Amino acid sequence: MTTTARRVHLVARPTGLPDDSTWSVRETELAPPAEGQVLVRTTHLSLDPAMRGWLNDVRSYVPPVGVGEVMRAFGVGTVLESRHDGITVGDTVTGTLGAADHAVLPGDQLTVVDLAVAPATTWLGALGMPGMTAWFGLFDVARARPGDTVLVSGAAGAVGSVVGQLAKAHGCRVIGIAGGPEKTRWLTEELGFDAAIDYREGSLHRAVRAVAPEGVDVYFDNVGGETLDAALRVLRRGARIAICGAISTYNATEPAPGPAHYMSLLVNRASMAGFLVFDYEDRYTEAVEGISAMLRAGTLTAREHVVSGGVDAFGDTLLMLFSGGNTGKLVLELSA
Amino acid sequence: MTTTARRVHLVARPTGLPDDSTWSVRETELAPPAEGQVLVRTTHLSLDPAMRGWLNDVRSYVPPVGVGEVMRAFGVGTVLESRHDGITVGDTVTGTLGAADHAVLPGDQLTVVDLAVAPATTWLGALGMPGMTAWFGLFDVARARPGDTVLVSGAAGAVGSVVGQLAKAHGCRVIGIAGGPEKTRWLTEELGFDAAIDYREGSLHRAVRAVAPEGVDVYFDNVGGETLDAALRVLRRGARIAICGAISTYNATEPAPGPAHYMSLLVNRASMAGFLVFDYEDRYTEAVEGISAMLRAGTLTAREHVVSGGVDAFGDTLLMLFSGGNTGKLVLELSA
Repeated sequence: MTTTARRVHLVARPTGLPDDSTWSVRETELAPPAEGQVLVRTTHLSLDPAMRGWLNDVRSYVPPVGVGEVMRAFGVGTVLESRHDGITVGDTVTGTLGAADHAVLPGDQLTVVDLAVAPATTWLGALGMPGMTAWFGLFDVARARPGDTVLVSGAAGAVGSVVGQLAKAHGCRVIGIAGGPEKTRWLTEELGFDAAIDYREGSLHRAVRAVAPEGVDVYFDNVGGETLDAALRVLRRGARIAICGAISTYNATEPAPGPAHYMSLLVNRASMAGFLVFDYEDRYTEAVEGISAMLRAGTLTAREHVVSGGVDAFGDTLLMLFSGGNTGKLVLELSA
Repeated sequence: MTTTARRVHLVARPTGLPDDSTWSVRETELAPPAEGQVLVRTTHLSLDPAMRGWLNDVRSYVPPVGVGEVMRAFGVGTVLESRHDGITVGDTVTGTLGAADHAVLPGDQLTVVDLAVAPATTWLGALGMPGMTAWFGLFDVARARPGDTVLVSGAAGAVGSVVGQLAKAHGCRVIGIAGGPEKTRWLTEELGFDAAIDYREGSLHRAVRAVAPEGVDVYFDNVGGETLDAALRVLRRGARIAICGAISTYNATEPAPGPAHYMSLLVNRASMAGFLVFDYEDRYTEAVEGISAMLRAGTLTAREHVVSGGVDAFGDTLLMLFSGGNTGKLVLELSA
């Protein structure tokens, strides 16, 4: 018996922000799972800034999504049929399910998750790619140490909100950069950040100096553009910058300028390193255990911004990432 | 008895290239050395790109030279009088002598050098700051390993020419970037570089790709600007960039644009670190021994571009660095 899947296809590469002409939702009959495969009903789709990069026809760390193909997306779903050892009907799984309400996938590309540990949405957030990114970016790439002053941009986003809380728990002083008073208030009042700066208000590097006169030891960058350039101006000697993303530039139609103050790296004997969470796959367990323990202890707040709708809502929901519309991890919960 | 010193004073901070209005040569009577001090007749002055930075009134790794002060400069000289234990009349010493023909300095700020190991000019080049910079930048900051493809800009300069030769001796493949056919020929025919690219000819990143289709593991940057941006486009996975200088931008009157392709650091899990040779002072002996051994074995060519004249020639000689007029370490040999 086949299953009807509604799937979001990339039909035209966008210039600037994606729009309705970018996507087409199509129905397809999925053949039943072959040996080793699993049929999943996707319950939650992850919306990630990196998706914008996957739409460009350029060489990168993964191939771009091809025109005509189903959009690449992480998700969580329920197993409806399984021909893979170790996955049972009724299991909740996560993986690269694609932007669709159903998928047939090799079982070895899926991970069974425990909803007793955290709800499905958190498995796409603090216990998913964003959490892994925060953990390895902060501890391995930026080498945050107790006593460090840590600055993080996109601080109210999926990755940044975890970075700041991990850094606090690690004994760092944490300054978040976010857009608007609601987000900055959330960071300081709910998440325990030492300070939060609204990047929309005045000079960013002066605002950082005001709360960190000695400068910062770590800058975790999710935003790029002028924010990165401002951060370069407030480095302490020996500072480390982790380049996680550059969401401010992803929809630019002109080449975005580079960070003009990069020579601060020399003056301050500082470094700037890019990373990809996928390189840490062998060590995800370490991060999942660390973050779950904090969730259980109540020392980490996992917040997801959940939009409900069908796969047709995928395109509009994605845009919230670029307008600053979400606080915490943005998830599309698919109506059954 | 006093000694008459002719000294180059900074009298006006330059905008863009320094010119005659920047400097004033003045005569001063130096008091005889006090206890612990030494009177030196400077025989050789070092001209360094970093000098341009010292002329700007900005916070950096050293205070700027004050208006009215004698210009900071490394040099080599002969000891005429000594009241410091361990330094004898007739010794050859090196240190921050200042742009002058005579200086009285604390003996503990000077290092006695052995002209049997190398001539005075080499003690300002391969065995001086440029050589130390090359050694620690290549091995400690960029962590060059045998088999790596190493790209170096300013390759015909004091630092770059040593970087390339050290990398070759270390088992790396070396590509140099320099200005003009004479320099590129020197790099490949005399210094043993595997390839040399004239940055004045066509697209730099394409030229690097042509000789290193897989990209580069190490980029040692002396130049900044468009050269750094081109290098970012040819990184291999895990590449390391050492930021040593940015001579192409030092005389810019508008803020120089940053490296637009910095997100290549993320795609390639690469890093970019700035450094200052002075932080390695405790380990200079290691580099001096390593480089002297190569000089003795004939496996490293130390080339100095020597201009003869009085201290009055300081200003014009410095400009050669920015017009690409020198090949190898630029030195002003003071007429006695």
